[in-house]
Amino acid sequence: MIIDRLFDAVAKLGPVCVGLDTSPQLLPASLLAKLPPAQAALAFNRDVIGATVDICACFKLQIAHYEALGVDGLACYRETVAYAHDKGAIVIGDVKRGDIASTGEMYARAHLAGEFAVDMITVNPYMGRDTIFPYLPYLESGEKGIFVLVRTSNPSAQDFQEIECGGRPLFLRVARAVAEWGEDHIGRSGYSAIGGVVGATGTDQLAAVRAEFPSIFFLVPGYGAQGAGGRDVAPAFRDGNGAVVNASRSIIGAHRGKPDGDKCYASYARAAAVKMREDIDRWLGK
Amino acid sequence: MIIDRLFDAVAKLGPVCVGLDTSPQLLPASLLAKLPPAQAALAFNRDVIGATVDICACFKLQIAHYEALGVDGLACYRETVAYAHDKGAIVIGDVKRGDIASTGEMYARAHLAGEFAVDMITVNPYMGRDTIFPYLPYLESGEKGIFVLVRTSNPSAQDFQEIECGGRPLFLRVARAVAEWGEDHIGRSGYSAIGGVVGATGTDQLAAVRAEFPSIFFLVPGYGAQGAGGRDVAPAFRDGNGAVVNASRSIIGAHRGKPDGDKCYASYARAAAVKMREDIDRWLGK
Repeated sequence: MIIDRLFDAVAKLGPVCVGLDTSPQLLPASLLAKLPPAQAALAFNRDVIGATVDICACFKLQIAHYEALGVDGLACYRETVAYAHDKGAIVIGDVKRGDIASTGEMYARAHLAGEFAVDMITVNPYMGRDTIFPYLPYLESGEKGIFVLVRTSNPSAQDFQEIECGGRPLFLRVARAVAEWGEDHIGRSGYSAIGGVVGATGTDQLAAVRAEFPSIFFLVPGYGAQGAGGRDVAPAFRDGNGAVVNASRSIIGAHRGKPDGDKCYASYARAAAVKMREDIDRWLGK
Repeated sequence: MIIDRLFDAVAKLGPVCVGLDTSPQLLPASLLAKLPPAQAALAFNRDVIGATVDICACFKLQIAHYEALGVDGLACYRETVAYAHDKGAIVIGDVKRGDIASTGEMYARAHLAGEFAVDMITVNPYMGRDTIFPYLPYLESGEKGIFVLVRTSNPSAQDFQEIECGGRPLFLRVARAVAEWGEDHIGRSGYSAIGGVVGATGTDQLAAVRAEFPSIFFLVPGYGAQGAGGRDVAPAFRDGNGAVVNASRSIIGAHRGKPDGDKCYASYARAAAVKMREDIDRWLGK
């Protein structure tokens, strides 16, 4: 099962998820000088994947950055996923889709089976279980999974996610639903292929969800550029596993401002990912 | 302002929004026989747009159906939007994106300024105001707008949207936020360029939001295939305006099962849209 593969990857390679939020302003001038933006992004992604695939659990592509480059950008997304798969890596599509019935089925087809197919995608639950169920047939094979937004890492997550409903914040109601939906999709690792996105910037919330829902695997955004560190993400883990921690700009933008950054961006990305892994390991007592 | 253009279109052409959820299974066999799926979808969309542009307020493209066809599908999306714009029509991109900070900015760029730019898009509010604010710079020109999901038309909308929070359902909290965010973007029509998606399948909820928030323009899904009729959508309107009602399958699939449907799909789409407009007009006392 995909969730067991992810569990094994964390055990073997550590919990870092390298976020390929590859927008032109992050790209080295040397690449932009010789290639159109979408092709430069693809070349960059390949180099970063090659430099980090043996020290990270997975890659996450934020599709917005590719959509902003139009059809060429989406071809870059597709080719980046294919390259990572060739290297044996697990790929999360951060698409945050959420829609119902025939439309939900189309998103499921697009992102779990179609041209843009990845291993797991992020899903927005605001419209309720109708937005989750279209993905379930794809989970049956064991090869696909989803992460449902539970408590995100942005400041205004509190606008709705923390509204009190019957004495409990909304995000815990969502987490409860995620755990229930996931009961039939639990692997040998004890985690479900229906995971949750729980941000590192709300450490108390992270701890609350972890304590109550041991079978939810976490995708944790917010590390690095958004301000969280190893100490903040540590409560996401159970016995050193059960979560991947994403960082994007702090890894793929680590070359910026360095004298040789234009040439050696992949090495800087690797060094940043290694440093992040060490930071998290320290707080996990490894 | 875009919202005034939409208001004027409703006044002049009626409140029908033709939903171009163009998936291969809806396409006439005659088109699929001579063209690849994405090109067949484009040919179909052009014909439907040509046949309905003078009797509908706007078109809505559900992007999931295009993503499911990969890069070619997204080129079809782009070309369909361009064709509708050439015909002077207003186009809503039903993308339900919702993300924060730099990612939100990328979605805004992609769907309000980039290659996939439409006039208005749908946005998911689960992550709070951080997901709305990236779109605001694009609203400044007056030419762009958004529809925020408030109360959707699917059965499980109740899972979270109707959770009681301090004595009121969540969707009314969201509607309140939408009205507040929209205060600085109200046009001469009295409506804001920050509108709301409120489904036709919850008529009481529709009436509740309309009564409390007169400046929110509604995009109303759920008519036709999802079960709602003119009577159900009537509470969305104020003096016969302030809402567009979307139907997709019941319009673009009206040719199915008809002896000459394969040839005359555009005429069937037009007839279905006219019938829908008459149905709604009757309940509005027009």
